[in-house]
Amino acid sequence: MIDAGIGGSHVTRVRVYYEDTDAAGIVYYANYLKFAERARSELMRDIGDGQYRKMLAQGMHFVVRRCVVDYIGAARLDDLLEVHSRMLALRGATLSAEQIVRRAGEDLVTMKIDLACLGPDGRPARIPPDLRAALAPYAGDAVAS
Amino acid sequence: MIDAGIGGSHVTRVRVYYEDTDAAGIVYYANYLKFAERARSELMRDIGDGQYRKMLAQGMHFVVRRCVVDYIGAARLDDLLEVHSRMLALRGATLSAEQIVRRAGEDLVTMKIDLACLGPDGRPARIPPDLRAALAPYAGDAVAS
Amino acid sequence: MIDAGIGGSHVTRVRVYYEDTDAAGIVYYANYLKFAERARSELMRDIGDGQYRKMLAQGMHFVVRRCVVDYIGAARLDDLLEVHSRMLALRGATLSAEQIVRRAGEDLVTMKIDLACLGPDGRPARIPPDLRAALAPYAGDAVAS
Amino acid sequence: MIDAGIGGSHVTRVRVYYEDTDAAGIVYYANYLKFAERARSELMRDIGDGQYRKMLAQGMHFVVRRCVVDYIGAARLDDLLEVHSRMLALRGATLSAEQIVRRAGEDLVTMKIDLACLGPDGRPARIPPDLRAALAPYAGDAVAS
Repeated sequence: MIDAGIGGSHVTRVRVYYEDTDAAGIVYYANYLKFAERARSELMRDIGDGQYRKMLAQGMHFVVRRCVVDYIGAARLDDLLEVHSRMLALRGATLSAEQIVRRAGEDLVTMKIDLACLGPDGRPARIPPDLRAALAPYAGDAVAS
Repeated sequence: MIDAGIGGSHVTRVRVYYEDTDAAGIVYYANYLKFAERARSELMRDIGDGQYRKMLAQGMHFVVRRCVVDYIGAARLDDLLEVHSRMLALRGATLSAEQIVRRAGEDLVTMKIDLACLGPDGRPARIPPDLRAALAPYAGDAVAS
Repeated sequence: MIDAGIGGSHVTRVRVYYEDTDAAGIVYYANYLKFAERARSELMRDIGDGQYRKMLAQGMHFVVRRCVVDYIGAARLDDLLEVHSRMLALRGATLSAEQIVRRAGEDLVTMKIDLACLGPDGRPARIPPDLRAALAPYAGDAVAS
Repeated sequence: MIDAGIGGSHVTRVRVYYEDTDAAGIVYYANYLKFAERARSELMRDIGDGQYRKMLAQGMHFVVRRCVVDYIGAARLDDLLEVHSRMLALRGATLSAEQIVRRAGEDLVTMKIDLACLGPDGRPARIPPDLRAALAPYAGDAVAS
Protein backbone atom coordinates (compact mmCIF):
# COMPACT_ATOMS: atom_id res chain seq x y z
CA MET A 1 0.00 0.00 0.00
CA ILE A 2 1.41 3.36 -0.98
CA ASP A 3 -0.08 6.23 0.94
CA ALA A 4 -0.33 9.74 -0.28
CA GLY A 5 1.49 12.06 2.14
CA ILE A 6 2.38 15.74 2.20
CA GLY A 7 2.99 16.90 -1.37
CA GLY A 8 3.02 13.36 -2.74
CA SER A 9 5.48 12.03 -0.19
CA HIS A 10 5.54 8.39 0.93
CA VAL A 11 3.97 7.61 4.30
CA THR A 12 4.88 4.88 6.77
CA ARG A 13 2.95 4.43 10.01
CA VAL A 14 4.82 3.71 13.24
CA ARG A 15 3.32 2.79 16.60
CA VAL A 16 5.28 3.84 19.71
CA TYR A 17 6.01 0.92 22.06
CA TYR A 18 7.86 0.76 25.39
CA GLU A 19 11.10 -0.10 23.57
CA ASP A 20 11.01 3.33 21.89
CA THR A 21 10.57 5.40 25.03
CA ASP A 22 12.93 6.40 27.83
CA ALA A 23 12.75 7.36 31.48
CA ALA A 24 11.74 10.91 30.50
CA GLY A 25 8.48 9.37 29.27
CA ILE A 26 9.07 10.27 25.63
CA VAL A 27 10.56 8.62 22.55
CA TYR A 28 14.37 8.46 22.91
CA TYR A 29 15.96 10.91 20.49
CA ALA A 30 18.01 8.33 18.56
CA ASN A 31 14.92 6.22 17.88
CA TYR A 32 13.46 8.70 15.39
CA LEU A 33 16.38 7.69 13.17
CA LYS A 34 15.16 4.11 13.44
CA PHE A 35 11.68 5.23 12.41
CA ALA A 36 13.20 7.11 9.47
CA GLU A 37 15.17 4.08 8.35
CA ARG A 38 12.06 1.88 8.57
CA ALA A 39 10.25 4.43 6.40
CA ARG A 40 13.06 4.50 3.84
CA SER A 41 13.01 0.70 3.71
CA GLU A 42 9.23 0.70 3.23
CA LEU A 43 9.53 3.31 0.49
CA MET A 44 12.16 1.15 -1.22
CA ARG A 45 9.94 -1.91 -0.82
CA ASP A 46 6.86 -0.12 -2.17
CA ILE A 47 8.39 1.11 -5.40
CA GLY A 48 9.25 -0.71 -8.56
CA ASP A 49 9.19 -4.42 -9.04
CA GLY A 50 11.26 -6.11 -6.36
CA GLN A 51 14.14 -3.74 -7.07
CA TYR A 52 15.00 -3.28 -3.43
CA ARG A 53 15.39 -7.03 -2.84
CA LYS A 54 17.36 -7.27 -6.10
CA MET A 55 19.67 -4.50 -4.91
CA LEU A 56 20.13 -6.17 -1.49
CA ALA A 57 20.74 -9.52 -3.21
CA GLN A 58 23.52 -7.86 -5.22
CA GLY A 59 25.20 -6.80 -1.99
CA MET A 60 24.41 -3.13 -2.54
CA HIS A 61 22.96 -0.89 0.10
CA PHE A 62 22.54 2.73 1.09
CA VAL A 63 24.52 4.32 3.90
CA VAL A 64 23.75 7.59 5.62
CA ARG A 65 26.41 10.26 5.11
CA ARG A 66 24.75 13.10 6.97
CA CYS A 67 21.60 13.81 8.89
CA VAL A 68 20.18 17.00 10.26
CA VAL A 69 17.46 16.39 12.80
CA ASP A 70 15.19 19.01 14.36
CA TYR A 71 13.17 17.96 17.39
CA ILE A 72 10.03 20.08 17.65
CA GLY A 73 7.68 17.95 19.75
CA ALA A 74 7.86 14.70 21.65
CA ALA A 75 6.12 11.42 20.83
CA ARG A 76 4.84 9.27 23.69
CA LEU A 77 3.93 5.68 24.43
CA ASP A 78 1.11 4.31 22.28
CA ASP A 79 1.20 7.26 19.84
CA LEU A 80 0.53 6.49 16.21
CA LEU A 81 3.08 8.36 14.09
CA GLU A 82 3.43 8.92 10.37
CA VAL A 83 6.78 9.26 8.68
CA HIS A 84 6.44 11.34 5.51
CA SER A 85 9.39 10.82 3.16
CA ARG A 86 10.26 12.52 -0.09
CA MET A 87 13.36 12.89 -2.22
CA LEU A 88 15.00 16.29 -2.22
CA ALA A 89 17.68 15.29 -4.73
CA LEU A 90 18.40 12.15 -6.70
CA ARG A 91 21.89 11.97 -8.15
CA GLY A 92 24.07 9.27 -9.68
CA ALA A 93 25.40 7.68 -6.52
CA THR A 94 23.74 9.72 -3.78
CA LEU A 95 20.34 10.96 -2.78
CA SER A 96 18.88 13.36 -0.25
CA ALA A 97 15.59 12.82 1.49
CA GLU A 98 13.36 14.88 3.72
CA GLN A 99 11.60 12.85 6.39
CA ILE A 100 9.03 14.29 8.74
CA VAL A 101 7.61 12.46 11.74
CA ARG A 102 4.06 13.64 12.35
CA ARG A 103 1.35 12.90 14.91
CA ALA A 104 -2.24 13.85 14.07
CA GLY A 105 -1.10 16.41 11.52
CA GLU A 106 1.53 17.98 13.77
CA ASP A 107 5.25 17.90 12.89
CA LEU A 108 7.26 16.36 15.73
CA VAL A 109 10.65 15.76 14.12
CA THR A 110 12.01 16.86 10.75
CA MET A 111 15.03 15.24 9.18
CA LYS A 112 17.19 15.86 6.15
CA ILE A 113 19.13 12.72 5.31
CA ASP A 114 21.93 12.37 2.75
CA LEU A 115 22.58 8.84 1.56
CA ALA A 116 25.19 7.21 -0.63
CA CYS A 117 24.84 3.95 -2.52
CA LEU A 118 27.57 1.40 -1.79
CA GLY A 119 28.47 -1.66 -3.82
CA PRO A 120 29.32 -5.15 -2.51
CA ASP A 121 32.92 -3.97 -2.04
CA GLY A 122 31.77 -1.20 0.28
CA ARG A 123 32.74 1.50 -2.21
CA PRO A 124 30.46 4.15 -3.74
CA ALA A 125 28.36 2.73 -6.56
CA ARG A 126 25.81 4.17 -8.97
CA ILE A 127 22.20 3.74 -7.92
CA PRO A 128 20.74 1.05 -10.23
CA PRO A 129 18.93 2.89 -13.09
CA ASP A 130 15.66 0.99 -12.55
CA LEU A 131 15.62 1.90 -8.88
CA ARG A 132 16.52 5.48 -9.67
CA ALA A 133 13.64 5.76 -12.14
CA ALA A 134 11.26 4.22 -9.64
CA LEU A 135 12.23 6.78 -6.98
CA ALA A 136 11.58 9.73 -9.29
CA PRO A 137 7.85 10.07 -8.47
CA TYR A 138 8.82 10.84 -4.86
CA ALA A 139 11.26 13.49 -6.00
CA GLY A 140 8.99 16.19 -7.44
CA ASP A 141 11.27 18.18 -9.71
CA ALA A 142 14.35 17.34 -7.66
CA VAL A 143 15.73 14.71 -10.05
CA ALA A 144 19.06 15.67 -11.54
CA SER A 145 18.85 15.31 -15.28
CA MET B 1 38.36 9.80 35.84
CA ILE B 2 38.37 12.80 33.55
CA ASP B 3 40.35 12.27 30.39
CA ALA B 4 42.01 15.00 28.42
CA GLY B 5 40.70 14.94 24.84
CA ILE B 6 41.14 17.10 21.78
CA GLY B 7 41.61 20.72 22.87
CA GLY B 8 40.59 20.00 26.45
CA SER B 9 37.42 18.12 25.53
CA HIS B 10 35.95 15.38 27.70
CA VAL B 11 36.56 11.80 26.57
CA THR B 12 34.35 8.75 27.08
CA ARG B 13 35.41 5.34 25.82
CA VAL B 14 32.87 3.06 24.15
CA ARG B 15 33.36 -0.57 23.13
CA VAL B 16 31.37 -1.79 20.11
CA TYR B 17 29.30 -4.90 20.87
CA TYR B 18 26.95 -6.97 18.68
CA GLU B 19 23.97 -4.89 19.88
CA ASP B 20 25.53 -1.82 18.21
CA THR B 21 26.09 -3.34 14.78
CA ASP B 22 23.75 -4.22 11.91
CA ALA B 23 23.61 -6.65 9.00
CA ALA B 24 25.91 -4.37 7.00
CA GLY B 25 28.63 -5.31 9.53
CA ILE B 26 29.01 -1.79 10.87
CA VAL B 27 27.61 0.27 13.74
CA TYR B 28 23.98 1.19 12.97
CA TYR B 29 23.75 4.92 12.23
CA ALA B 30 21.33 5.77 15.04
CA ASN B 31 23.57 4.16 17.64
CA TYR B 32 26.21 6.90 17.44
CA LEU B 33 23.57 9.12 19.02
CA LYS B 34 23.42 6.62 21.90
CA PHE B 35 27.19 6.83 22.26
CA ALA B 36 26.95 10.62 22.25
CA GLU B 37 24.30 10.59 24.95
CA ARG B 38 26.39 8.22 27.09
CA ALA B 39 29.30 10.64 26.69
CA ARG B 40 27.18 13.62 27.68
CA SER B 41 25.96 11.73 30.75
CA GLU B 42 29.53 10.82 31.69
CA LEU B 43 30.63 14.43 31.23
CA MET B 44 27.77 15.53 33.48
CA ARG B 45 28.71 12.89 36.03
CA ASP B 46 32.41 13.82 35.97
CA ILE B 47 31.97 17.49 36.67
CA GLY B 48 31.13 19.31 39.82
CA ASP B 49 29.98 17.73 43.02
CA GLY B 50 27.03 15.48 42.34
CA GLN B 51 25.31 18.27 40.45
CA TYR B 52 24.03 15.95 37.75
CA ARG B 53 22.30 13.68 40.27
CA LYS B 54 20.97 16.75 42.04
CA MET B 55 19.56 18.06 38.77
CA LEU B 56 17.95 14.68 37.97
CA ALA B 57 16.56 14.50 41.50
CA GLN B 58 14.92 17.88 40.94
CA GLY B 59 13.14 16.47 37.90
CA MET B 60 15.22 18.53 35.49
CA HIS B 61 16.84 17.12 32.40
CA PHE B 62 18.30 18.08 29.05
CA VAL B 63 16.51 17.39 25.79
CA VAL B 64 18.02 17.49 22.34
CA ARG B 65 16.58 20.19 20.09
CA ARG B 66 18.76 19.63 17.03
CA CYS B 67 21.56 17.42 15.89
CA VAL B 68 23.72 17.53 12.81
CA VAL B 69 25.58 14.30 12.26
CA ASP B 70 28.30 13.67 9.67
CA TYR B 71 29.27 10.06 9.06
CA ILE B 72 32.85 9.91 7.79
CA GLY B 73 33.94 6.36 8.60
CA ALA B 74 32.34 3.22 9.99
CA ALA B 75 32.99 1.57 13.34
CA ARG B 76 32.92 -2.22 13.55
CA LEU B 77 32.41 -4.98 16.09
CA ASP B 78 34.94 -4.96 18.94
CA ASP B 79 36.28 -1.49 18.05
CA LEU B 80 37.27 0.74 20.94
CA LEU B 81 35.92 4.21 20.31
CA GLU B 82 36.43 7.54 22.01
CA VAL B 83 33.75 10.18 22.17
CA HIS B 84 35.33 13.64 22.51
CA SER B 85 32.83 16.19 23.80
CA ARG B 86 33.17 19.91 24.25
CA MET B 87 30.83 22.84 24.71
CA LEU B 88 30.47 25.17 21.75
CA ALA B 89 28.11 27.52 23.54
CA LEU B 90 26.72 27.69 27.05
CA ARG B 91 23.68 29.91 27.46
CA GLY B 92 21.02 30.45 30.09
CA ALA B 93 18.68 27.60 29.23
CA THR B 94 20.44 25.95 26.28
CA LEU B 95 23.83 24.65 25.29
CA SER B 96 25.53 23.42 22.16
CA ALA B 97 28.10 20.65 22.14
CA GLU B 98 30.45 19.22 19.58
CA GLN B 99 30.90 15.48 19.89
CA ILE B 100 33.37 13.52 17.79
CA VAL B 101 33.53 9.72 17.72
CA ARG B 102 37.11 8.66 17.04
CA ARG B 103 38.92 5.36 16.57
CA ALA B 104 42.68 5.29 16.94
CA GLY B 105 42.97 9.01 16.27
CA GLU B 106 40.67 8.95 13.24
CA ASP B 107 37.38 10.86 13.18
CA LEU B 108 34.48 8.54 12.33
CA VAL B 109 31.43 10.62 13.17
CA THR B 110 31.14 14.30 14.07
CA MET B 111 28.07 15.70 15.75
CA LYS B 112 26.82 19.11 16.69
CA ILE B 113 24.11 18.82 19.31
CA ASP B 114 21.86 21.59 20.61
CA LEU B 115 20.24 20.91 23.98
CA ALA B 116 17.68 22.67 26.11
CA CYS B 117 17.23 22.34 29.85
CA LEU B 118 13.71 21.37 30.95
CA GLY B 119 12.22 21.69 34.38
CA PRO B 120 10.00 19.17 36.21
CA ASP B 121 6.99 20.63 34.37
CA GLY B 122 8.57 19.85 31.01
CA ARG B 123 9.05 23.52 30.22
CA PRO B 124 12.34 25.32 29.44
CA ALA B 125 14.29 26.08 32.60
CA ARG B 126 17.55 27.84 33.36
CA ILE B 127 20.56 25.58 33.70
CA PRO B 128 21.39 25.49 37.43
CA PRO B 129 24.21 28.04 38.01
CA ASP B 130 26.48 25.52 39.74
CA LEU B 131 26.18 23.10 36.83
CA ARG B 132 26.71 25.90 34.36
CA ALA B 133 29.89 26.99 36.12
CA ALA B 134 31.15 23.42 36.23
CA LEU B 135 30.64 23.01 32.50
CA ALA B 136 32.65 26.14 31.68
CA PRO B 137 36.05 24.40 31.57
CA TYR B 138 34.79 22.31 28.65
CA ALA B 139 33.64 25.39 26.83
CA GLY B 140 36.87 27.21 25.99
CA ASP B 141 35.82 30.81 25.46
CA ALA B 142 32.35 29.79 24.30
CA VAL B 143 30.61 30.73 27.52
CA ALA B 144 28.15 33.56 27.09
CA SER B 145 28.85 36.20 29.68
CA MET C 1 -7.81 -6.03 12.83
CA ILE C 2 -7.57 -9.21 14.84
CA ASP C 3 -5.92 -12.07 13.02
CA ALA C 4 -6.58 -15.70 13.67
CA GLY C 5 -3.32 -17.47 14.52
CA ILE C 6 -2.34 -20.92 15.70
CA GLY C 7 -5.13 -22.32 17.87
CA GLY C 8 -6.92 -18.99 18.05
CA SER C 9 -3.87 -17.03 19.11
CA HIS C 10 -3.40 -13.34 18.32
CA VAL C 11 -1.06 -12.49 15.44
CA THR C 12 1.10 -9.39 15.00
CA ARG C 13 3.24 -8.92 11.91
CA VAL C 14 6.78 -7.58 12.22
CA ARG C 15 9.10 -6.58 9.40
CA VAL C 16 12.85 -6.97 10.03
CA TYR C 17 14.81 -3.75 9.45
CA TYR C 18 18.52 -2.95 9.77
CA GLU C 19 17.97 -1.78 13.37
CA ASP C 20 16.96 -5.34 14.31
CA THR C 21 19.98 -7.12 12.86
CA ASP C 22 23.59 -7.42 13.98
CA ALA C 23 27.00 -8.03 12.43
CA ALA C 24 26.28 -11.78 12.28
CA GLY C 25 23.65 -10.91 9.65
CA ILE C 26 20.72 -12.07 11.77
CA VAL C 27 18.24 -10.53 14.19
CA TYR C 28 20.01 -9.75 17.48
CA TYR C 29 18.81 -12.14 20.17
CA ALA C 30 17.44 -9.49 22.53
CA ASN C 31 15.30 -7.98 19.80
CA TYR C 32 12.86 -10.90 19.73
CA LEU C 33 11.80 -9.69 23.17
CA LYS C 34 11.01 -6.33 21.59
CA PHE C 35 8.91 -8.08 18.95
CA ALA C 36 7.13 -10.00 21.71
CA GLU C 37 6.38 -6.84 23.63
CA ARG C 38 5.03 -5.14 20.49
CA ALA C 39 2.78 -8.16 19.99
CA ARG C 40 1.54 -8.05 23.59
CA SER C 41 0.79 -4.33 23.19
CA GLU C 42 -1.09 -4.98 19.95
CA LEU C 43 -3.07 -7.78 21.59
CA MET C 44 -3.95 -5.42 24.46
CA ARG C 45 -4.92 -2.72 21.96
CA ASP C 46 -7.06 -5.10 19.89
CA ILE C 47 -9.20 -6.39 22.71
CA GLY C 48 -12.02 -4.82 24.61
CA ASP C 49 -13.10 -1.25 24.44
CA GLY C 50 -10.13 1.00 25.00
CA GLN C 51 -9.29 -0.92 28.15
CA TYR C 52 -5.57 -0.86 27.50
CA ARG C 53 -5.50 2.93 27.22
CA LYS C 54 -7.71 3.13 30.31
CA MET C 55 -5.31 0.90 32.20
CA LEU C 56 -2.30 2.98 31.09
CA ALA C 57 -4.16 6.17 31.99
CA GLN C 58 -4.67 4.77 35.50
CA GLY C 59 -0.92 4.35 35.84
CA MET C 60 -1.13 0.57 35.70
CA HIS C 61 1.09 -1.59 33.54
CA PHE C 62 2.40 -5.10 33.12
CA VAL C 63 5.97 -6.04 33.96
CA VAL C 64 7.77 -9.20 32.91
CA ARG C 65 8.74 -11.46 35.82
CA ARG C 66 10.25 -14.31 33.85
CA CYS C 67 10.89 -15.31 30.28
CA VAL C 68 12.11 -18.53 28.77
CA VAL C 69 13.27 -18.09 25.20
CA ASP C 70 14.22 -20.85 22.77
CA TYR C 71 16.03 -19.82 19.61
CA ILE C 72 15.38 -22.39 16.88
CA GLY C 73 16.05 -20.47 13.68
CA ALA C 74 17.34 -17.03 12.71
CA ALA C 75 15.40 -14.19 11.13
CA ARG C 76 17.15 -11.97 8.61
CA LEU C 77 16.92 -8.51 7.10
CA ASP C 78 13.66 -7.83 5.27
CA ASP C 79 11.95 -10.97 6.62
CA LEU C 80 8.26 -10.70 7.41
CA LEU C 81 7.61 -12.33 10.77
CA GLU C 82 4.46 -13.22 12.65
CA VAL C 83 4.26 -13.20 16.42
CA HIS C 84 1.57 -15.64 17.60
CA SER C 85 0.50 -14.89 21.17
CA ARG C 86 -1.85 -16.75 23.45
CA MET C 87 -2.56 -16.87 27.16
CA LEU C 88 -1.38 -19.96 29.02
CA ALA C 89 -2.78 -18.81 32.34
CA LEU C 90 -4.78 -15.84 33.48
CA ARG C 91 -4.78 -15.26 37.22
CA GLY C 92 -5.77 -12.44 39.53
CA ALA C 93 -2.64 -10.31 39.32
CA THR C 94 -0.47 -12.29 36.91
CA LEU C 95 -0.66 -13.94 33.53
CA SER C 96 1.47 -16.26 31.45
CA ALA C 97 1.69 -16.06 27.68
CA GLU C 98 3.20 -18.20 24.97
CA GLN C 99 4.61 -16.20 22.11
CA ILE C 100 5.99 -17.79 18.96
CA VAL C 101 7.87 -15.90 16.26
CA ARG C 102 7.24 -17.56 12.91
CA ARG C 103 8.41 -16.99 9.33
CA ALA C 104 6.41 -18.57 6.53
CA GLY C 105 4.92 -21.18 8.86
CA GLU C 106 8.24 -22.06 10.49
CA ASP C 107 8.86 -21.50 14.20
CA LEU C 108 11.98 -19.37 14.75
CA VAL C 109 11.74 -18.41 18.41
CA THR C 110 9.38 -19.64 21.12
CA MET C 111 8.85 -17.73 24.34
CA LYS C 112 7.03 -18.28 27.57
CA ILE C 113 6.51 -15.00 29.37
CA ASP C 114 5.22 -14.49 32.90
CA LEU C 115 3.83 -11.04 33.61
CA ALA C 116 2.58 -9.26 36.69
CA CYS C 117 0.19 -6.34 36.81
CA LEU C 118 1.49 -3.31 38.73
CA GLY C 119 -0.51 -0.40 40.04
CA PRO C 120 0.43 3.30 39.96
CA ASP C 121 2.44 2.78 43.16
CA GLY C 122 4.58 0.13 41.45
CA ARG C 123 3.10 -2.64 43.61
CA PRO C 124 1.26 -5.77 42.42
CA ALA C 125 -2.34 -5.02 41.51
CA ARG C 126 -5.27 -7.09 40.31
CA ILE C 127 -5.79 -7.12 36.56
CA PRO C 128 -8.88 -4.94 35.91
CA PRO C 129 -11.88 -7.34 35.58
CA ASP C 130 -12.94 -5.93 32.18
CA LEU C 131 -9.47 -6.45 30.76
CA ARG C 132 -9.28 -9.90 32.26
CA ALA C 133 -12.59 -10.89 30.68
CA ALA C 134 -11.47 -9.51 27.34
CA LEU C 135 -8.28 -11.57 27.42
CA ALA C 136 -10.17 -14.82 28.06
CA PRO C 137 -10.80 -15.65 24.39
CA TYR C 138 -7.02 -15.87 23.90
CA ALA C 139 -6.69 -18.21 26.82
CA GLY C 140 -8.47 -21.37 25.70
CA ASP C 141 -9.39 -23.14 28.94
CA ALA C 142 -6.43 -21.63 30.76
CA VAL C 143 -8.47 -19.08 32.68
CA ALA C 144 -8.41 -19.67 36.40
CA SER C 145 -11.95 -19.73 37.68
CA MET D 1 41.31 -5.95 34.23
CA ILE D 2 39.66 -9.12 35.45
CA ASP D 3 37.48 -8.61 38.46
CA ALA D 4 36.72 -11.24 41.03
CA GLY D 5 32.98 -11.71 41.31
CA ILE D 6 30.70 -14.09 43.18
CA GLY D 7 32.45 -17.45 43.54
CA GLY D 8 35.20 -16.52 41.07
CA SER D 9 32.84 -15.28 38.39
CA HIS D 10 33.80 -12.59 35.90
CA VAL D 11 32.44 -9.09 36.53
CA THR D 12 31.56 -6.40 34.00
CA ARG D 13 30.29 -3.01 35.11
CA VAL D 14 27.42 -1.37 33.25
CA ARG D 15 26.10 2.15 33.73
CA VAL D 16 22.39 2.73 33.01
CA TYR D 17 21.78 5.53 30.49
CA TYR D 18 18.57 6.96 29.03
CA GLU D 19 18.83 4.56 26.06
CA ASP D 20 18.40 1.63 28.46
CA THR D 21 15.27 2.86 30.20
CA ASP D 22 11.63 3.05 29.13
CA ALA D 23 8.54 5.09 29.93
CA ALA D 24 7.96 3.03 33.08
CA GLY D 25 11.15 4.65 34.43
CA ILE D 26 13.08 1.39 34.60
CA VAL D 27 15.48 -0.56 32.39
CA TYR D 28 13.53 -2.12 29.48
CA TYR D 29 13.37 -5.88 29.97
CA ALA D 30 15.11 -6.81 26.72
CA ASN D 31 18.09 -4.61 27.55
CA TYR D 32 19.35 -6.89 30.31
CA LEU D 33 20.14 -9.32 27.49
CA LYS D 34 22.30 -6.60 25.94
CA PHE D 35 24.10 -6.17 29.25
CA ALA D 36 24.62 -9.94 29.43
CA GLU D 37 26.05 -10.04 25.92
CA ARG D 38 28.41 -7.15 26.71
CA ALA D 39 29.56 -9.10 29.76
CA ARG D 40 30.12 -12.29 27.75
CA SER D 41 32.13 -10.30 25.20
CA GLU D 42 34.23 -8.73 27.97
CA LEU D 43 34.80 -12.14 29.53
CA MET D 44 35.92 -13.45 26.13
CA ARG D 45 38.18 -10.42 25.68
CA ASP D 46 39.70 -10.76 29.14
CA ILE D 47 40.74 -14.38 28.86
CA GLY D 48 43.55 -16.00 26.97
CA ASP D 49 45.82 -14.32 24.49
CA GLY D 50 43.71 -12.60 21.87
CA GLN D 51 41.75 -15.80 21.35
CA TYR D 52 38.44 -14.00 21.05
CA ARG D 53 39.70 -11.78 18.21
CA LYS D 54 41.29 -14.83 16.60
CA MET D 55 37.96 -16.66 16.80
CA LEU D 56 36.09 -13.70 15.32
CA ALA D 57 38.74 -13.36 12.60
CA GLN D 58 38.11 -17.00 11.68
CA GLY D 59 34.44 -16.21 11.16
CA MET D 60 33.38 -18.16 14.23
CA HIS D 61 30.99 -16.85 16.82
CA PHE D 62 28.64 -17.91 19.59
CA VAL D 63 24.89 -17.86 19.21
CA VAL D 64 22.34 -18.07 21.99
CA ARG D 65 20.16 -21.18 21.86
CA ARG D 66 18.13 -20.62 25.00
CA CYS D 67 17.84 -18.13 27.80
CA VAL D 68 15.88 -18.21 31.02
CA VAL D 69 15.58 -14.80 32.59
CA ASP D 70 14.19 -14.02 36.04
CA TYR D 71 13.41 -10.39 36.81
CA ILE D 72 13.63 -9.80 40.55
CA GLY D 73 14.22 -6.06 40.83
CA ALA D 74 14.37 -3.08 38.49
CA ALA D 75 17.41 -1.01 37.56
CA ARG D 76 16.97 2.71 37.03
CA LEU D 77 18.63 5.61 35.25
CA ASP D 78 22.19 6.29 36.39
CA ASP D 79 22.47 3.01 38.33
CA LEU D 80 25.83 1.29 38.29
CA LEU D 81 25.28 -2.41 37.68
CA GLU D 82 27.57 -5.41 37.83
CA VAL D 83 27.10 -8.43 35.59
CA HIS D 84 28.54 -11.52 37.26
CA SER D 85 29.18 -14.31 34.73
CA ARG D 86 30.31 -17.86 35.23
CA MET D 87 30.26 -21.06 33.22
CA LEU D 88 27.81 -23.72 34.34
CA ALA D 89 28.91 -26.21 31.69
CA LEU D 90 31.58 -26.21 29.03
CA ARG D 91 31.13 -28.85 26.35
CA GLY D 92 32.59 -29.51 22.90
CA ALA D 93 30.46 -27.17 20.85
CA THR D 94 28.19 -25.59 23.46
CA LEU D 95 28.40 -23.88 26.81
CA SER D 96 26.01 -22.73 29.49
CA ALA D 97 26.53 -19.61 31.54
CA GLU D 98 24.89 -18.09 34.56
CA GLN D 99 24.77 -14.32 34.48
CA ILE D 100 23.50 -12.21 37.35
CA VAL D 101 22.88 -8.49 37.15
CA ARG D 102 23.47 -6.93 40.56
CA ARG D 103 23.22 -3.46 42.06
CA ALA D 104 25.01 -2.75 45.31
CA GLY D 105 25.08 -6.42 46.23
CA GLU D 106 21.44 -7.04 45.37
CA ASP D 107 20.41 -9.45 42.58
CA LEU D 108 18.15 -7.72 40.05
CA VAL D 109 18.08 -10.16 37.17
CA THR D 110 19.38 -13.72 36.92
CA MET D 111 19.94 -15.43 33.60
CA LYS D 112 20.85 -18.87 32.43
CA ILE D 113 22.15 -18.74 28.87
CA ASP D 114 22.90 -21.69 26.59
CA LEU D 115 25.23 -20.90 23.70
CA ALA D 116 26.45 -22.82 20.68
CA CYS D 117 29.64 -22.19 18.74
CA LEU D 118 29.11 -21.67 15.00
CA GLY D 119 31.72 -21.86 12.27
CA PRO D 120 32.11 -19.52 9.27
CA ASP D 121 29.50 -21.61 7.43
CA GLY D 122 26.96 -20.95 10.15
CA ARG D 123 27.00 -24.59 11.26
CA PRO D 124 27.85 -25.91 14.75
CA ALA D 125 31.59 -26.02 15.32
CA ARG D 126 33.83 -27.15 18.16
CA ILE D 127 34.93 -24.40 20.53
CA PRO D 128 38.64 -23.80 19.76
CA PRO D 129 40.65 -25.81 22.35
CA ASP D 130 42.71 -22.80 23.46
CA LEU D 131 39.58 -20.78 24.11
CA ARG D 132 37.96 -23.70 25.88
CA ALA D 133 40.95 -24.09 28.18
CA ALA D 134 40.97 -20.37 28.89
CA LEU D 135 37.31 -20.45 29.90
CA ALA D 136 37.84 -23.28 32.38
CA PRO D 137 38.79 -21.05 35.34
CA TYR D 138 35.33 -19.50 35.16
CA ALA D 139 33.71 -22.91 35.18
CA GLY D 140 34.52 -24.28 38.61
CA ASP D 141 34.19 -28.03 38.25
CA ALA D 142 31.62 -27.69 35.46
CA VAL D 143 34.03 -28.56 32.64
CA ALA D 144 33.10 -31.77 30.88
CA SER D 145 36.13 -33.99 30.72
